Amino acid sequence: MKEKKILIHGGGKIATQVADKLGLEVKMHNGRRITDQAMLEVVQMVYGGLVNKNIVSMLQALGCNAVGLTGADLNVVRAVKRPVKDIDYGFVGDVTQVNQKALSDLLENDCVPILAPLTHDGKGNMLNTNADTIASETATAMSSAYQTHLLYCFEKKGVLKDVNDESSVITSLNEKNYAEYLAQNVIFAGMIPKLDNAFSALKKGVREVVILEADNLQNIENQYFIGTRITLQ
Amino acid sequence: MKEKKILIHGGGKIATQVADKLGLEVKMHNGRRITDQAMLEVVQMVYGGLVNKNIVSMLQALGCNAVGLTGADLNVVRAVKRPVKDIDYGFVGDVTQVNQKALSDLLENDCVPILAPLTHDGKGNMLNTNADTIASETATAMSSAYQTHLLYCFEKKGVLKDVNDESSVITSLNEKNYAEYLAQNVIFAGMIPKLDNAFSALKKGVREVVILEADNLQNIENQYFIGTRITLQ
Repeated sequence: MKEKKILIHGGGKIATQVADKLGLEVKMHNGRRITDQAMLEVVQMVYGGLVNKNIVSMLQALGCNAVGLTGADLNVVRAVKRPVKDIDYGFVGDVTQVNQKALSDLLENDCVPILAPLTHDGKGNMLNTNADTIASETATAMSSAYQTHLLYCFEKKGVLKDVNDESSVITSLNEKNYAEYLAQNVIFAGMIPKLDNAFSALKKGVREVVILEADNLQNIENQYFIGTRITLQ
Repeated sequence: MKEKKILIHGGGKIATQVADKLGLEVKMHNGRRITDQAMLEVVQMVYGGLVNKNIVSMLQALGCNAVGLTGADLNVVRAVKRPVKDIDYGFVGDVTQVNQKALSDLLENDCVPILAPLTHDGKGNMLNTNADTIASETATAMSSAYQTHLLYCFEKKGVLKDVNDESSVITSLNEKNYAEYLAQNVIFAGMIPKLDNAFSALKKGVREVVILEADNLQNIENQYFIGTRITLQ
């Protein structure tokens, strides 16, 4: 693809492995990591240092002028520490602002921003932030300057009717049939935050959202029927 | 200071702590870390993720538009894996090229590059590289476009005649009296790589090198006699 690109990556499994090796207890709530000070250091190390720089160095070897960024670098993604309600998620950031100008400047210089799922609060603190949310917020912000396509890559062929059957891909999904699937408990729980993010992005100006298998990404130009294409209507 | 700045940081002590917690054995030779695959991951995490992003987020909080970079990001510092002679240093990089253009572009955009002591080989591999060397090589490369001052900050007041006496600062040092001090074994062994780097940078176009206490950096504008000023003659 000749289009300008931004890559947002995760690293949760590696963070959990490193935390285990360091003897830290990994605490989750509804699939979201609870991030105390020690765990913040782990995700900062794993996302910002290990995973991000492995991706950047590999892309550079392929001739792609990648630049790895956390939300703090160039102030690209600002967040606030999530307020404590029933659960204290710790050093977790809810995105407040994506710096479209800084990212556009890089894109216009033929750089490819590689965003780690880390934000900052503008007061000197790094925060852990879900990669899907950063992807959705970034796509939304970029849509004020570009026609933006948001591609969620994961290990399944797309959104499945039956999580155990890779041939059950829902090829297109709109708000109405998403609501129906939800009412019928068809959608796997782990998909719901990703889909909520997708619809949120579409409502704020993103042109298209596709949920697809990472290995299929290279085929997306040539084949229309890859993954699940999400639209409002 | 209103001058444009680049900060190069270290992090060796924290890397050693993290390696200890992970149960890895830290191997050194002549004060240089031997970097096997597991240690490369540690330094990548600690330098690129933990230390770099802590500095960047703190600078952003102070209104400084910092951007944290390893050598791989924007291809700013390219290196080759050190050839194995008597000692195999492992994944350690000897700098071959600093991307003056990429750094200048950032500086001209009022960004402040914060360089972690990590390089890449252009083939997809990250490498561990001494921060003093990156500082010297970067200052040298930047001197083709800017009048460049190279400031080495550390925990002592400057180069000392007596390592146990902070009042014994050598206020100025040139090649001739450096050779004399070396012959007399006056210079503390740990200073020698730093001083060799300093003279190398001066010979390649850097205007001035100062070795000073980090806490004194804020006073360098107002007081001439801070630290050790190094010149060729």
